Amino acid sequence: MPLGKAVIGQSGGPTAVINRSLVGFIKEATKSDFDEILGAKHGLEGMLNEDFVDLSNLSEAQLYGIGKTPAAALGSVRKKPTDSDIEKLVSIFEQQNIRNFFYIGGNDSAETANLVSEGAKSIGYEMKAFHIPKTIDNDLRETDHCPGYGSAARFVAHAFQGDDADNRSLRGIKINVLMGRHAGWLTAASTLGKSTEEDGPHLVYVPEKVFNIETFLKEVKEVYDSLGRCVVAVSEGIHNEDGEYFLQTYASETGSGLAGKKDSHGNIQLSGSGALGDTLTNIVSQHIDGARVRADTFGYLQRSFLADVSDIDAEEAERVGHHAVVFSKELQSGSVILKRQLSETYHCDVDVVDLSKVAKHTKDMPKEFLDESKPYVTNDFFEYAMPLTGGIEPKTQIFV
Amino acid sequence: MPLGKAVIGQSGGPTAVINRSLVGFIKEATKSDFDEILGAKHGLEGMLNEDFVDLSNLSEAQLYGIGKTPAAALGSVRKKPTDSDIEKLVSIFEQQNIRNFFYIGGNDSAETANLVSEGAKSIGYEMKAFHIPKTIDNDLRETDHCPGYGSAARFVAHAFQGDDADNRSLRGIKINVLMGRHAGWLTAASTLGKSTEEDGPHLVYVPEKVFNIETFLKEVKEVYDSLGRCVVAVSEGIHNEDGEYFLQTYASETGSGLAGKKDSHGNIQLSGSGALGDTLTNIVSQHIDGARVRADTFGYLQRSFLADVSDIDAEEAERVGHHAVVFSKELQSGSVILKRQLSETYHCDVDVVDLSKVAKHTKDMPKEFLDESKPYVTNDFFEYAMPLTGGIEPKTQIFV
Repeated sequence: MPLGKAVIGQSGGPTAVINRSLVGFIKEATKSDFDEILGAKHGLEGMLNEDFVDLSNLSEAQLYGIGKTPAAALGSVRKKPTDSDIEKLVSIFEQQNIRNFFYIGGNDSAETANLVSEGAKSIGYEMKAFHIPKTIDNDLRETDHCPGYGSAARFVAHAFQGDDADNRSLRGIKINVLMGRHAGWLTAASTLGKSTEEDGPHLVYVPEKVFNIETFLKEVKEVYDSLGRCVVAVSEGIHNEDGEYFLQTYASETGSGLAGKKDSHGNIQLSGSGALGDTLTNIVSQHIDGARVRADTFGYLQRSFLADVSDIDAEEAERVGHHAVVFSKELQSGSVILKRQLSETYHCDVDVVDLSKVAKHTKDMPKEFLDESKPYVTNDFFEYAMPLTGGIEPKTQIFV
Repeated sequence: MPLGKAVIGQSGGPTAVINRSLVGFIKEATKSDFDEILGAKHGLEGMLNEDFVDLSNLSEAQLYGIGKTPAAALGSVRKKPTDSDIEKLVSIFEQQNIRNFFYIGGNDSAETANLVSEGAKSIGYEMKAFHIPKTIDNDLRETDHCPGYGSAARFVAHAFQGDDADNRSLRGIKINVLMGRHAGWLTAASTLGKSTEEDGPHLVYVPEKVFNIETFLKEVKEVYDSLGRCVVAVSEGIHNEDGEYFLQTYASETGSGLAGKKDSHGNIQLSGSGALGDTLTNIVSQHIDGARVRADTFGYLQRSFLADVSDIDAEEAERVGHHAVVFSKELQSGSVILKRQLSETYHCDVDVVDLSKVAKHTKDMPKEFLDESKPYVTNDFFEYAMPLTGGIEPKTQIFV
């Protein structure tokens, strides 16, 4: 098979370190003999419109700068390709002699890479397709964790340390809403800056458990009665037994019109709105007399904050980009993963698995990371997640 | 007058560096001959309940730790003292031989110090009363700027840099709501990380100008039509010609029940809720067809984020605490201020003014910091604010 050109795109919600994966890819790709190295603007959209930039001749300074920029430098897209999109895409690849497809993204991107690979096979066009993992949600299968998560977790842990000190200063009930519609990884990271039991968050609600508003109110009241304050971490994806989002069922019941906004992947819009936090605040205020109740929704800052990135996360993000090129020399397709090594100090190796193993489905937090008896995480989670953040310094004792 | 004891309290919304002022105070106070140095838990509340901690014997390590902790280490309070509170307070001071009152806070705290000073005078009790400035809102009179603002401005500038990159990646209209009910200082800080005209925020709405929803929609649409995206910074305090908050008038008209929540200073609750952002999002969505519209409310993170503090702000916060003790040796009362020096490099000296000059009223952004023709700030604002943040590195160019 002729080597041909390589194309790379970025997809889905950005992360603080997604561009380090791009830089890792470019550095290794320029050492290879690809006819050309193309960056597609806004992922699939740019590929379908043949809107490419040449990535072959960037200076070291440019690469360094791109690596320090959050969010997708090539632009991103949320697009599930149709059959005819794939057909058109493969035909463009054939015309342009693009024989190496790389896609940085989550499980939807692994699925896209898989569809491209299958589509090319079906018309007998020889090409390679690789998925480079990223997502702050940390919900990809096979990999130990996802590049982007460590930095988002670091931001969330620091944010809770500050907000908990704030809540000690001016007591009340504080609800913070975190990203992660399917899995509670980022919500759980809220606990990583705690030094003592009395530090917040005191309660952590993740989508891995069924959410019940009555139980929630009881648990919040218990902490508030005992400490005179309560800091709560709530995932945007909390849902009932049937998997229906709390906000959606609550909105249907109250007619607030929030239900039904969906993207092209069929996902309901949960981010970019304070609705869940405000709804919970109103319910808690009605239930617990006289309490000062506030909510913050951390929003897009979780995936884009410049000034507080995990060094380990950034390094690993670059490494998976780099290895995607390396793997493409020997394999037809695959999804790059991180494998944690058993050693005294934290280390992950890079490996590769079949695209189908990562595509479509997501990974919940395992049972051993979640406390059975209360809405909280276990020490196993702490040991798993802390190294990924680059370490969170404990907060100093204060007087109140 | 006998020197007696000193008491210090913290009041109002915390900041990331308010404890540096406490540390500056303690360091200088322990060098003085006060009979005792008392910290009041939760400000006035602790003073009225005689709930004090001894601050005389803290180690260097403890002081360092306190200085690195965000939010009020002594606890804070939002309390406007009544006449009988002041009477009780002065009587406690007299019983305990407390003759030096220090209060870290905003304009309400300067007023409290003034009331304490007047109250003591009225019964012939000799005591001193000093106000140490802090507020992320930067709206105190007389001082060049307020400790706490630089760090909050740094956080906001970095947050907008990341969020703007995010908005370039996945295009749409993004509205971010910032703290500052009376003045637009923090909202204006959203511009400090911009490198080019095309970087967001593209529009900045501050309480110094009357907010009109029709004009807002027109301006957002103009930017969106021209760039294909639009990032907007909106102060929580936007209001109509009569000074009524937009959220309040909109809530009254639509019956959403948000109006009317007030604290003991008579302020309407604007923070700790995503209501303003969500309301604007809904209006923009209805007005601009097909646009992806999202809002984030930065919330309490602006005043408590650990990991991104301005060094200059932290140093100045410590210095005003230190100087409050120094001024108390020669004067009866006063509010500590920062005075910017005319020099090549940025520097502020510390000075003191009458409490009455700082109490009660707040300071808006001056006309020369606001663009007359469009919702934006001027270069004069940029030059004023940038040094306070410790400097914001420009963002790298990206491909889209």
